[in-house]
Amino acid sequence: QPVPQVPFPQFTDPFQYELEKLRRESENVNKTFEEKTSILRAELERKLAEVRAEYQRKFHEVEVEKNARETEVERTKNIVIMNKLLGNAFLSKCTTKIASHPS
Amino acid sequence: QPVPQVPFPQFTDPFQYELEKLRRESENVNKTFEEKTSILRAELERKLAEVRAEYQRKFHEVEVEKNARETEVERTKNIVIMNKLLGNAFLSKCTTKIASHPS
Repeated sequence: QPVPQVPFPQFTDPFQYELEKLRRESENVNKTFEEKTSILRAELERKLAEVRAEYQRKFHEVEVEKNARETEVERTKNIVIMNKLLGNAFLSKCTTKIASHPS
Repeated sequence: QPVPQVPFPQFTDPFQYELEKLRRESENVNKTFEEKTSILRAELERKLAEVRAEYQRKFHEVEVEKNARETEVERTKNIVIMNKLLGNAFLSKCTTKIASHPS
């Protein structure tokens, strides 16, 4: 909400009037400075958060890609092992048959 | 410097050969992942530093502007006070003259 304006006091002395005007001007300078820095601070935080979020997405993409490749390697490894076991079983069956039916 | 490639060992067993190939593939997946995340981390740090530097400049501009306005208020205040003193001195001189030369 806007800060209510303090009514300007009545001065009979023009010197006091000028000093009060300058005191208010000085107050105004500080208020404007505080407002501007506060806006900049908020903007800065927002931009930093945006950059961090953008890179969180990129890190996530790289991780998803890595997991997919790891799964693929694991799948291939299982196929290789399965083939080896099947080969062994087949060999063992043949060897048994050859042993039980010698030519 | 590039990491020297470890020569691929000779395998008589094709099963061992396949497993070694997959072990290397898995190593490669991890190496690529580490490299990519390392590049992203460096990029992220660079971007964050850029944003911070940009806002440091903006904060500095706002401060310079505030200091200039404060200096201006101070300068005006000194003029007002100086005028008041001159006015007082002038008044006092006139009052003295009027008192010493009554009409």
